[in-house]
Amino acid sequence: MMEPHLHPIDRVETTATTEALGRVLAEDTRAPADLPHFARSAMDGYAVRAEDTHGATEGLPAYLKVVGEVAMGKPATVKLSPGEAALIHTGGMLAVGADAVVMVENTRSVDASMIEVVRPVAKGENVIQIGEDMAKGDALLPCGSLLRPQDIGSLLSLGITRVSVFQKVKAALIPTGDELVPPETEPGPGQIRNTNAFALAAMAAKAGAMPIVMDIAPDNDASLKATTQRALDLADIVVVSAGSSVSTRDMTSRVVDSLGKPGVLVHGVSLRPGKPTILAAVGRKPVFGLPGNPASAMVTFGIFVTPAIHRLSGCSQPPQRFAAKAKLTRNIPSATGREDYVPVRIEEKDGELYADPVFGKSNLLFAMIRADGLARVPLDKAGMTAGELVDVTLF
Amino acid sequence: MMEPHLHPIDRVETTATTEALGRVLAEDTRAPADLPHFARSAMDGYAVRAEDTHGATEGLPAYLKVVGEVAMGKPATVKLSPGEAALIHTGGMLAVGADAVVMVENTRSVDASMIEVVRPVAKGENVIQIGEDMAKGDALLPCGSLLRPQDIGSLLSLGITRVSVFQKVKAALIPTGDELVPPETEPGPGQIRNTNAFALAAMAAKAGAMPIVMDIAPDNDASLKATTQRALDLADIVVVSAGSSVSTRDMTSRVVDSLGKPGVLVHGVSLRPGKPTILAAVGRKPVFGLPGNPASAMVTFGIFVTPAIHRLSGCSQPPQRFAAKAKLTRNIPSATGREDYVPVRIEEKDGELYADPVFGKSNLLFAMIRADGLARVPLDKAGMTAGELVDVTLF
Repeated sequence: MMEPHLHPIDRVETTATTEALGRVLAEDTRAPADLPHFARSAMDGYAVRAEDTHGATEGLPAYLKVVGEVAMGKPATVKLSPGEAALIHTGGMLAVGADAVVMVENTRSVDASMIEVVRPVAKGENVIQIGEDMAKGDALLPCGSLLRPQDIGSLLSLGITRVSVFQKVKAALIPTGDELVPPETEPGPGQIRNTNAFALAAMAAKAGAMPIVMDIAPDNDASLKATTQRALDLADIVVVSAGSSVSTRDMTSRVVDSLGKPGVLVHGVSLRPGKPTILAAVGRKPVFGLPGNPASAMVTFGIFVTPAIHRLSGCSQPPQRFAAKAKLTRNIPSATGREDYVPVRIEEKDGELYADPVFGKSNLLFAMIRADGLARVPLDKAGMTAGELVDVTLF
Repeated sequence: MMEPHLHPIDRVETTATTEALGRVLAEDTRAPADLPHFARSAMDGYAVRAEDTHGATEGLPAYLKVVGEVAMGKPATVKLSPGEAALIHTGGMLAVGADAVVMVENTRSVDASMIEVVRPVAKGENVIQIGEDMAKGDALLPCGSLLRPQDIGSLLSLGITRVSVFQKVKAALIPTGDELVPPETEPGPGQIRNTNAFALAAMAAKAGAMPIVMDIAPDNDASLKATTQRALDLADIVVVSAGSSVSTRDMTSRVVDSLGKPGVLVHGVSLRPGKPTILAAVGRKPVFGLPGNPASAMVTFGIFVTPAIHRLSGCSQPPQRFAAKAKLTRNIPSATGREDYVPVRIEEKDGELYADPVFGKSNLLFAMIRADGLARVPLDKAGMTAGELVDVTLF
């Protein structure tokens, strides 16, 4: 439903590759040169001419004269004539005239300048040829790659020390509700602290966005409209953490509709917790209205906003996209036609994962802090029974 | 083996809770006050005196006079006498004299000031009592908690706006090898770019540490000793990314032993890749010597250094500590008495996860960039066959 309204941002910036962990590549990268750019040994041993070892056995070894050692990090200056070998280390440049490496384990030292080779090697054996890891022009990482440690290593190994990445998606979080006070304020009777916007800001940061927490918008159309407009001006994606009563939900929907087309796309989803979720867009910017209950807000943020942030970030392979499978320790009631998310603790016993539902009181946030993840009861199930395998999204 | 040599750091600092995502709590936290601090409604509906609804049915509803509305965020000023009700919203403060809330779905409006209640409520129903989520003094998050979005929300909901956290563990990465040049340098014949230290630095950052990449140490005892000593002075944990030849491995071991007790604890582990790993400690600081092959270095960092960083960080519940289970798509050879780690791509088909081994050429780093995680063949298995469930640590 939201899919056509999620436009990847087009703001890019250049950054040092060493600083690019977790950023999203904004360009296709290719090998600018062969890797390795010289034939190198894959083993500790002796550089040889393969034909000199043919037919060598334990009983009838090949005798080779050791004429030198390849120094690490230096051009190979040793030159082999027939019947000669050079000591070489893993990663060392192949000696001139050599075409294979005999592992040290397959040699015996006769004296300082002579070895026995007890097994033959084929041409190219234990040698990494020029361009074998990457040939010049080979595709490395495509645009949209979320950079992980190995990606950074691979880019640097090819000398790509700066990369073009998408700027971070700006996500505005709007806390609404007459009952809210800032966290540092002592709430009076009837008041509670604004915490949702900060928990959601942390989720946005985890998803790779730059969170912007807006001032608390009181429960009236004019205030919410002004704050939402400001958020739309500042950010790429807007999340209204709505009051939990029906009237404030309707207000969010009304205000979003008044700010521009297409407006509200979905009002209410088959989800528990999270039923009163609003999915909307104003111009090219997605807007989400999330329920006020802290746990509902987090669950719906994870289901709708996190993937939207990844999409807007240009990220083609979001992290942690695979749920863990765990055995339920007890029954979870649900209803067909509704997806349920239940906080669970994960325990490992005899190599198997078990998901133990954590039940909270009114405020599931405190169940969430004791949980390791959320178990999902699919739409078509009227509950799940103890022992069934359930999908768990780990926090 | 390393366990007794991993001492959590004792440097703490205070930070704003809103900035504490991913940090580790250095104090036990408790609820400084009851939450909620006033009785509040869990539903949209009417605050009532429960006894006024007793026996109410669809056919024989209870008639209540609506004497007001509880405004959100305000002290409840409405006072109920017998036979009266007040409109209330989710999260609203319970009206004086009320002891339950009737859901709006179980009422019918008669006129502006009268409702029918068609189902009875018990005393306390749909009301969140004072301290029901958290009573003053209740344990919230213990020292050692790695702070997640819900933890930040929970702390803020109780007004804990600043927290004491452990400082980040400083992890020094030492690249060694005569063949290494900095990534920005064009390598000559026999030379390669230093990439391991930066890939490992990114892994250290992911594990919550502050990485410090040292200058490249050439392959001689004096240089490596001086660099390692400097690293021990600067950091809490030292990782030597060793050259891959036997001689440089021996050098690492010799140098570490020369720097102080207890020195090298383990030299060589039953692991592929990663056999030549060195586990050591100098004084109270752990030192790791990792193999030079980029993939081996990353695998052994993940197995030995990441958990050590978590331990040093004071973290009692490290993230991502559960492996995913996936079905192997083909056989993996191994040997009993050795643990094998194989880069795999994960694919989901019909709700099942499949692990497809990615084979690289000489440099497994390029296999790692196409992989989603590492599959583990346990110590006691002589390989695994297609269709078997394998543990996969996702990147």
